Amino acid sequence: MTFHDRARFPRGFRCASRNVGLKPEARDLTLFASDVDAAAAAVFTRNQFPGAPIILGRETMRGGTLRAIIANSKVSNVATGERGVENARRMAAAAAAELGTDAGKVLVSSTGVIGVQLPVEKIEAGVRGMKADLQDDPLVGAEGIMTTDTHPKALSASVGEATITWIAKGSGMIEPNMATMLAYIFTDAAIAAATLDRLLREAVHVSFNMLSVDTDTSTSDTCVILANGLAGVVDEAAFREALTAGCVRMTEILARDGEGAEHLLRVTVREAVSDAEARLVAKSLVNSPLIKTMVHGADPNVGRILMAIGKCFEATVNTSATSAWVNGYQVVGNGQRLEFDDAVVRSALAVEVVDLEVALGAGSATARAYGCDLTKGYIDENAAYYSS
Amino acid sequence: MTFHDRARFPRGFRCASRNVGLKPEARDLTLFASDVDAAAAAVFTRNQFPGAPIILGRETMRGGTLRAIIANSKVSNVATGERGVENARRMAAAAAAELGTDAGKVLVSSTGVIGVQLPVEKIEAGVRGMKADLQDDPLVGAEGIMTTDTHPKALSASVGEATITWIAKGSGMIEPNMATMLAYIFTDAAIAAATLDRLLREAVHVSFNMLSVDTDTSTSDTCVILANGLAGVVDEAAFREALTAGCVRMTEILARDGEGAEHLLRVTVREAVSDAEARLVAKSLVNSPLIKTMVHGADPNVGRILMAIGKCFEATVNTSATSAWVNGYQVVGNGQRLEFDDAVVRSALAVEVVDLEVALGAGSATARAYGCDLTKGYIDENAAYYSS
Repeated sequence: MTFHDRARFPRGFRCASRNVGLKPEARDLTLFASDVDAAAAAVFTRNQFPGAPIILGRETMRGGTLRAIIANSKVSNVATGERGVENARRMAAAAAAELGTDAGKVLVSSTGVIGVQLPVEKIEAGVRGMKADLQDDPLVGAEGIMTTDTHPKALSASVGEATITWIAKGSGMIEPNMATMLAYIFTDAAIAAATLDRLLREAVHVSFNMLSVDTDTSTSDTCVILANGLAGVVDEAAFREALTAGCVRMTEILARDGEGAEHLLRVTVREAVSDAEARLVAKSLVNSPLIKTMVHGADPNVGRILMAIGKCFEATVNTSATSAWVNGYQVVGNGQRLEFDDAVVRSALAVEVVDLEVALGAGSATARAYGCDLTKGYIDENAAYYSS
Repeated sequence: MTFHDRARFPRGFRCASRNVGLKPEARDLTLFASDVDAAAAAVFTRNQFPGAPIILGRETMRGGTLRAIIANSKVSNVATGERGVENARRMAAAAAAELGTDAGKVLVSSTGVIGVQLPVEKIEAGVRGMKADLQDDPLVGAEGIMTTDTHPKALSASVGEATITWIAKGSGMIEPNMATMLAYIFTDAAIAAATLDRLLREAVHVSFNMLSVDTDTSTSDTCVILANGLAGVVDEAAFREALTAGCVRMTEILARDGEGAEHLLRVTVREAVSDAEARLVAKSLVNSPLIKTMVHGADPNVGRILMAIGKCFEATVNTSATSAWVNGYQVVGNGQRLEFDDAVVRSALAVEVVDLEVALGAGSATARAYGCDLTKGYIDENAAYYSS
């Protein structure tokens, strides 16, 4: 699948973003709107302390129809009790009033510090007039939801007559500073909400749900897709393939832009006995601080690969038939470290995208996980977030 | 329980350590010996790629009797195949010959880089004459097994007429550089091997198994206890209490000396529905990079405590009755962040030992986990171990 050189919106979708005083100067409020009602599906964080927007969002998504998304940064409206949920409702109502739609068709997102009440009056005042700002460039919306991201993230691609557009922020399934993952997907293909839900879950299973920057699952993660139907019906298989490809690509972009990251780390596990075990081992490798620091330092300490596989006590591993490759160069065979030229492995690790591939010798299932290296930048960004 | 001001050995135990050329200058070979046969019990790593000394050790421990332990650093003899196991046997045989005992009564430990064959000839040559070096100070042995530890670690305490001595190294259940955890416990109490095994497992359950510096389980972790009986029978309840107290204290010492650590982080979880869930949540908190960096920076970003509880999807959490304290100062109540003076929480976090306490409001089980903060020192030590 080919992504457009410059991301654009599907027919009928526009966005706007502005500063409403939550942050000193940066854009902190964003509005995405469809000209007509859109079928919609969403997946939210599994964290047991979901933010107020997630609590409200689950209720909103029962309708299966969205007209708009309103998102603020700086304050995540998490652990704020009933007042927090009430503030999320006020935010939806303000966006609905501005756009002339029902609050039940507006999804709310908030990202930022946990445990602080939302300055909802600033949002209510700030959203007024935003309808006039709505424009065609997805990057304006992508910029508006940025927190610790180093660049705005938007992709788009064509499927027949339809377009799919992905906009995301966040550095991962993490709550590093304000880097909750928010992923918004827009399409003008005509797809029923139930189908959309199934296709979204399939795509998320192999993309965003295989992303980890630091193992810390945010209380605000949200991935939503809106289909307004303006391009008519498209081939479902082609749509499914495109949707998944875009979610995987966006996952790679988010991993590469993880907090402090200097490398994208992709881990592929083959020959597992099940999808679940392949995913378990891939996540173990992508999350291991010792694998992450090995990649960071381009240090050919590849024995750590066996350690990170072996600590998955529940996985079936054929320990005498386990193999591993670093960017295509085999470093482990028959469960033992091979003799190799350190300089070659060092070079293989010293590139921006590091692929670790592991074969467990136990079955035929495969999974891939996405992450990044662990750097001092991560510690700088996270040892003083609240205070800075 | 009171530990001795300076650690000493129980009757009949001695140790020696020297440099045999594995490292440039530092002591790299250590011998612990009992004058008489000792009942023994051990627990080893659950990693699926155990080192050759672990494979041999499981065989050795079936005898239930030990006379000595021989340990080297620099090379861990892991992922080295049959030749590795043969080298471990040669190491045991060399120590047995030097001490005039059977190789089946010698436990072998190796710690260091994974996937490199052991220079066993250096060890065989080096162990000759070590019997004459055997002496009474446990710190000599503790120093001999150090790798990235910043100080040798030994404790001792009295139980009736008997003494228990703990010697350990390692910075955790981790394989950071060469920081496999090795913990050796010696006593002159008379205890049968089966009882010893039960008491050891109980103690390890609440101590070393609740320690995590970086989530990475070493391929070489070993905890062994030797009881030579020279002090006769002691009260089992008193012995059990002392054994556990010493294991917990040693766990704290190891956590505080984790790679790059500047704080000891103790997490106590109360009001869980089961021991397993209390342990799960305590480990989630002690392992969260965002909790660890919060402690490192003394940043009162305590909403992260709820995030790290909430990401335990399997745990029963009463989210409207969850509370949390930082060094005794309550920061979360009824599942919401309380209003507090940032400066007070900042001060509570800025001390060497940080206690996080969490009440889940769901049951009556309690568990405590031990860890440390995440610092740039960890990254420095682990981004270039192999190369340095």
